[in-house]
Amino acid sequence: MDQVNLKRLAKELNLAVSTVSRALSDSYDISEETKKKVLALAKDLNYQPNPFARSLRNRSSKTIAVILPEIANNYFSVAINGIEEIAQANDYHVLIYITHENFQKEAAIVKHLLNGRVDGILMSLSGGSSDTGHLTELQSSNIPVVFFDRISDTFDTVKVTTNNFESGYLATSHLLSRGSKKIAYLTFSADLSIEQQRMKGYLEAVENHGLVINGDLIVRCNTSAEESYQKIKELFRTDDRPDGVFASVESLAILAYEVCQELQLRIPEDVKIVGFSNLRTASLLSPALTTITQPAFNMGQEAAKALFEALKKPHIKMKNNTIVLRSNLIERRSTASN
Amino acid sequence: MDQVNLKRLAKELNLAVSTVSRALSDSYDISEETKKKVLALAKDLNYQPNPFARSLRNRSSKTIAVILPEIANNYFSVAINGIEEIAQANDYHVLIYITHENFQKEAAIVKHLLNGRVDGILMSLSGGSSDTGHLTELQSSNIPVVFFDRISDTFDTVKVTTNNFESGYLATSHLLSRGSKKIAYLTFSADLSIEQQRMKGYLEAVENHGLVINGDLIVRCNTSAEESYQKIKELFRTDDRPDGVFASVESLAILAYEVCQELQLRIPEDVKIVGFSNLRTASLLSPALTTITQPAFNMGQEAAKALFEALKKPHIKMKNNTIVLRSNLIERRSTASN
Repeated sequence: MDQVNLKRLAKELNLAVSTVSRALSDSYDISEETKKKVLALAKDLNYQPNPFARSLRNRSSKTIAVILPEIANNYFSVAINGIEEIAQANDYHVLIYITHENFQKEAAIVKHLLNGRVDGILMSLSGGSSDTGHLTELQSSNIPVVFFDRISDTFDTVKVTTNNFESGYLATSHLLSRGSKKIAYLTFSADLSIEQQRMKGYLEAVENHGLVINGDLIVRCNTSAEESYQKIKELFRTDDRPDGVFASVESLAILAYEVCQELQLRIPEDVKIVGFSNLRTASLLSPALTTITQPAFNMGQEAAKALFEALKKPHIKMKNNTIVLRSNLIERRSTASN
Repeated sequence: MDQVNLKRLAKELNLAVSTVSRALSDSYDISEETKKKVLALAKDLNYQPNPFARSLRNRSSKTIAVILPEIANNYFSVAINGIEEIAQANDYHVLIYITHENFQKEAAIVKHLLNGRVDGILMSLSGGSSDTGHLTELQSSNIPVVFFDRISDTFDTVKVTTNNFESGYLATSHLLSRGSKKIAYLTFSADLSIEQQRMKGYLEAVENHGLVINGDLIVRCNTSAEESYQKIKELFRTDDRPDGVFASVESLAILAYEVCQELQLRIPEDVKIVGFSNLRTASLLSPALTTITQPAFNMGQEAAKALFEALKKPHIKMKNNTIVLRSNLIERRSTASN
């Protein structure tokens, strides 16, 4: 007789393996009906879970931490769901810490976690953290760290990110192909490597299109929504105002919409806008927002999987390995041709 | 000479006390300029922080937990910011647990926290938790619990909530005054007392308007966005479809927009929509969404303040006390008269 594993259950029920796994871990996004079917068959066939989770038992806290710059960002809320799915399958708790883009706070949280409160850490760097000195103590305490999205270039471990350079190039080329000639780049932190990559993509696309780069069009915003709003507004009040906007962060795309609303600039007729975003309401905005959408759920999953792999092999140092999951350009009305 | 306290600093700088407090705790939403001014004066006057924080030192973990049903909800992401501000002023860490509306998960998290990992808990109940048996152990372990938003009626402690009945009444009356006659009520959990209050407000407004209540217009959705979408779509496909929608939860208002988009129903001409929501993009939607907006930041602050009060007095049992902060109806185009 065949071994009774997830694959077998999935085959018999004509479901995806991941659906069966999520049904067994009582995941919130599986319907009650499917859960009942899966549990009934698992019982009938006397399914025993993979011993993988058990190998983690020698770890004490059964908890991992997720350290994030902010929570009111759809990328992170979706990524957390991916992380939680994997953690739940491993019978682990997830606790979330928010740095609010404050490097000192990030360092304090990391220090706080050195006491063995968690077995491992998933982390997306705050805007100010070009320095990773605060993380080396974790390594000597044998607490594995995996980065996702905002990764570190200098700290050796597994990193899950997206194709930031290409996405920046693609977003900018898209605006150029729709007729924009003066494209503003709204950024948040020049310290983060992913932002540098996105900006490089922007710069290269502008140059390759035979246009001259104008530094005035590159606006560095900050965590104060009010100050960022003012900066964007000033830019749009100049005589030579931009006719396109590439926002490297979701919240900046929203601010650009609000500025256009105040100044009565029409999107896309006067200004075309594209932004990195997993905004749930992107298609419902007036007008619908063109986005570079990251595979947030999968990125969370992959990062968590890598962390649990490391927890299974506590005496093996994690190798430097960057996993790149591709983002998609989703074209909507905010970048339509005039 | 006057005592140098927050009030004195605020007066000298002509700022609000809360701004000074936030500047001193390096809060993310205060500008760098203000922080510099506050810090300079605090240094000049040799300001010493209130001993309040120090009285908490006998507690060991310096951490509070926030247990939430979901994170991709703007109410909660704003409330967390309010909580974090108070925690930061007390030099405490905040860790966040998500239940995904799963009562079993909520109970497991609470059990997990009995080991003294945190000093206190702020909690918003999951959709299924009418039973609070899992919380009584916290009381005997001397771990204080404060509820916010989704409070318990049966567990005695401090509870911070909004005027749910009145808000439900107001939202429904608003739709009626704009011409809606068949108003659907979209709800999520009939177990939660706050949802019951909102629905009561809806029912009373319909009756007071001389209309007959139609049970078919009350749609109970669930955590599966797909299933909820189908339920709402079915409702809108009936011959006798609703001409108004009151969504008791943000995500259901968004699903209603998506259904209208698919079925090519015009908002507000064919269907008017109002929803409980702290959606950042409410005013940018097509059309802008009329909302009942909760004072999420203040609710988070008040709940955290009550918890720190309890932590200061570890041997006094918390009294049952419900703090009600009022919500506002923010009228936008989605409920405009035809």
